[in-house]
Amino acid sequence: MSEIPVIKAALLGAGTVGSGVYQILEWQKEEMPKKLGAVVRLKKILVRDTKKQREGMDSSLFTDNWKEILEDPEIQIVIEVMGGIEPARTYITEALQAGKHVVTANKDLLAEHGKEVLDAAAEHGCDLMFEAAVAGGIPIIRPLKQCLAANHLTEVMGIVNGTTNYILTKMTADHMEFSEALALATELGYAEADPTADIEGYDAARKVAIMASIAFNSRVTFQDVHTEGITKITAGDIAYAAELGMVIKLLGVARNTETGIEVGVYPMLIPREHPLAGVNDSFNAVFVHGDAVDDAMFQGRGAGKLPTASAVMGDVFEIARDLRAGSTGRINCTCYKELRLKPAEEMENRYFIRMQVEDQPGVLASIASVFGNHHVSIAQVIQKSVSGGVAELVVITDKVVERHFRDALLIMGEMSIVKEISSVLRVYTQNH
Amino acid sequence: MSEIPVIKAALLGAGTVGSGVYQILEWQKEEMPKKLGAVVRLKKILVRDTKKQREGMDSSLFTDNWKEILEDPEIQIVIEVMGGIEPARTYITEALQAGKHVVTANKDLLAEHGKEVLDAAAEHGCDLMFEAAVAGGIPIIRPLKQCLAANHLTEVMGIVNGTTNYILTKMTADHMEFSEALALATELGYAEADPTADIEGYDAARKVAIMASIAFNSRVTFQDVHTEGITKITAGDIAYAAELGMVIKLLGVARNTETGIEVGVYPMLIPREHPLAGVNDSFNAVFVHGDAVDDAMFQGRGAGKLPTASAVMGDVFEIARDLRAGSTGRINCTCYKELRLKPAEEMENRYFIRMQVEDQPGVLASIASVFGNHHVSIAQVIQKSVSGGVAELVVITDKVVERHFRDALLIMGEMSIVKEISSVLRVYTQNH
Repeated sequence: MSEIPVIKAALLGAGTVGSGVYQILEWQKEEMPKKLGAVVRLKKILVRDTKKQREGMDSSLFTDNWKEILEDPEIQIVIEVMGGIEPARTYITEALQAGKHVVTANKDLLAEHGKEVLDAAAEHGCDLMFEAAVAGGIPIIRPLKQCLAANHLTEVMGIVNGTTNYILTKMTADHMEFSEALALATELGYAEADPTADIEGYDAARKVAIMASIAFNSRVTFQDVHTEGITKITAGDIAYAAELGMVIKLLGVARNTETGIEVGVYPMLIPREHPLAGVNDSFNAVFVHGDAVDDAMFQGRGAGKLPTASAVMGDVFEIARDLRAGSTGRINCTCYKELRLKPAEEMENRYFIRMQVEDQPGVLASIASVFGNHHVSIAQVIQKSVSGGVAELVVITDKVVERHFRDALLIMGEMSIVKEISSVLRVYTQNH
Repeated sequence: MSEIPVIKAALLGAGTVGSGVYQILEWQKEEMPKKLGAVVRLKKILVRDTKKQREGMDSSLFTDNWKEILEDPEIQIVIEVMGGIEPARTYITEALQAGKHVVTANKDLLAEHGKEVLDAAAEHGCDLMFEAAVAGGIPIIRPLKQCLAANHLTEVMGIVNGTTNYILTKMTADHMEFSEALALATELGYAEADPTADIEGYDAARKVAIMASIAFNSRVTFQDVHTEGITKITAGDIAYAAELGMVIKLLGVARNTETGIEVGVYPMLIPREHPLAGVNDSFNAVFVHGDAVDDAMFQGRGAGKLPTASAVMGDVFEIARDLRAGSTGRINCTCYKELRLKPAEEMENRYFIRMQVEDQPGVLASIASVFGNHHVSIAQVIQKSVSGGVAELVVITDKVVERHFRDALLIMGEMSIVKEISSVLRVYTQNH
């Protein structure tokens, strides 16, 4: 029997995901020769502190010197799981320039500098894969780039942040308020000490930028994504949503319309029958619509050591196959269009508005006429007396242009009969 | 600007899926050069009757002579969408022997002769792709072979037949009996004139055989799949399932256990919270569990002209990319193991039994003791008086070995207190 070729790799980062990658490489030791016709083996692990013991890891592989990896011609694959823009950006760029192939789980980097690193990969004939950067273990990048490549995709919508989905699930199922659900998420380790990136939607925005770029073949960056978080959602909003047959989810939404790409992250009311509505707890899911495939959805674990490492290692195995077939760089950046990005004020959505108004005749008529004057038509109204002469009014609009809607809100906010505009949320609209 | 390379393909079959493939090729004309660096163009379409007009199709491409395609060295890709074992098996084999790459949607062929055609592809360095053969437009073959390649998958469960899922959905939502729901499905075109392959589970069995082979890296054929259909399910069974917090779905189930592969197609009670429980109407979904990825699910359109053609064309684009990269045959058959297949009597499941018994004291004790004598432990019992001294008894068992369970049933069927064993169904058990 001939010798099994060994492909040497370096791991940058030995944190949660890094230790998952290490573990899967152990688990797959016997399988790799048969699966890939080769064995992938770690030669170096870049860490900050080489003295620190890391359970189960061979400390003789540790180095704190990037050059040792970069300048080692035996190392063909660099697996970056450090996160953050720098030094990951420099390391990845240098690795590609040296002809090394790269797997990264780094959504921050890809959502801001995706073009730069993908161009570097193309220039040097290298693979740059990043399945783990969006929705953790769920296969989504490869399905979009390959399986669904024969579609014009018009919609990509995802629950791509497990922390906020856990919080909203708790608020829905157990009627908690936001602060209470956040505290629980923090206690259970679902939310980080500083939860800003999650609860303000920045993490989801990075993922939706990456997905939109691939789905629509046109670059969308983090900065292009209009982002709203879930901090203002109340148990009351969720109860009204339930009354309307809907649930509230934090969605990354990207649409390819005839007048440009709409992309945003916002809490949204979606009908209970929509496949995304049933995706609860810390699960993630991505829903797509294409001219040929119609609707499809992918769901699973969007984070965590092993699910994320599953996606990373799937990419590593792909590179091993490319190395065996001599086809590295087979699929590069697929952003070959330059589509217009719609500014937020041009986007079209249905809205849910909850407001406190004076409880007297004629109030609804006044509000309806302000909406009417701004081309906002009303689909549904719920009015409830609260107390002290105040009524709570919930209005669901038809699809409206955001600019018109904002203008109407501005005027309403100044009307004496309107005591407070408590919540303004988007409502899912099927566009196909 | 340099000339864009043209890749010539032949389409075998101009039926529903064939016309979808034709249509997508038109839709993707402008995209292909940028997406693939090449254009895929049909040179021939194999049809039975070249005189028959087919709307929107260029009739000058029609031929009824396979040799014209086989012997044309310009044709690099053969797209087989005729279905059925012969002549598809011969054509595909001859095409591969001639060095042509093949895309097929043919589950019958793959579930019975998968090894033979995959070996022919490997021998001749050709691509043989079949994403459309399982779950129509839903990406599942590539996710299993590539994205999830770093997992030991232990469970693959799918709703992979839209007709039966539609029938069960109608029985559940509208309380129809089977015959009524089947009649409606036939009327609406969801069921074929002869629905046997769907309602007896044969269609699902072919798909689960293909999925299990890929997921567990060990060949499973149609003949290996223990198959039960949905014809005996009653509205009463569905009502009991609801009472127990469950729904009944026809599932293709494949498990990789330490003592061998279990594979079957049967109607199963699954908890309402399971992601598969919410997959309704004619939608399909495939649920997988792996050691790294944990749970993941893929859902969408499992059939239909364009969704199926979406999967076929995704494969065609992959082959175009392989031709451009010189990497055809990059991923071949992944069945490198020979795992044991468990005979049905060794499989372990929980069961739901509905029976009519004499409505008198001691009956339950007698039945419980028969179960007990056969190592079948009871998890739950519902007893309802019906009329005329007869009670309906529903028993849910713990996980039991099928052989023991069958022995117990045999004895119970002969007991005078048991008037009828009305239903025997499996109940989903989480094994991980």
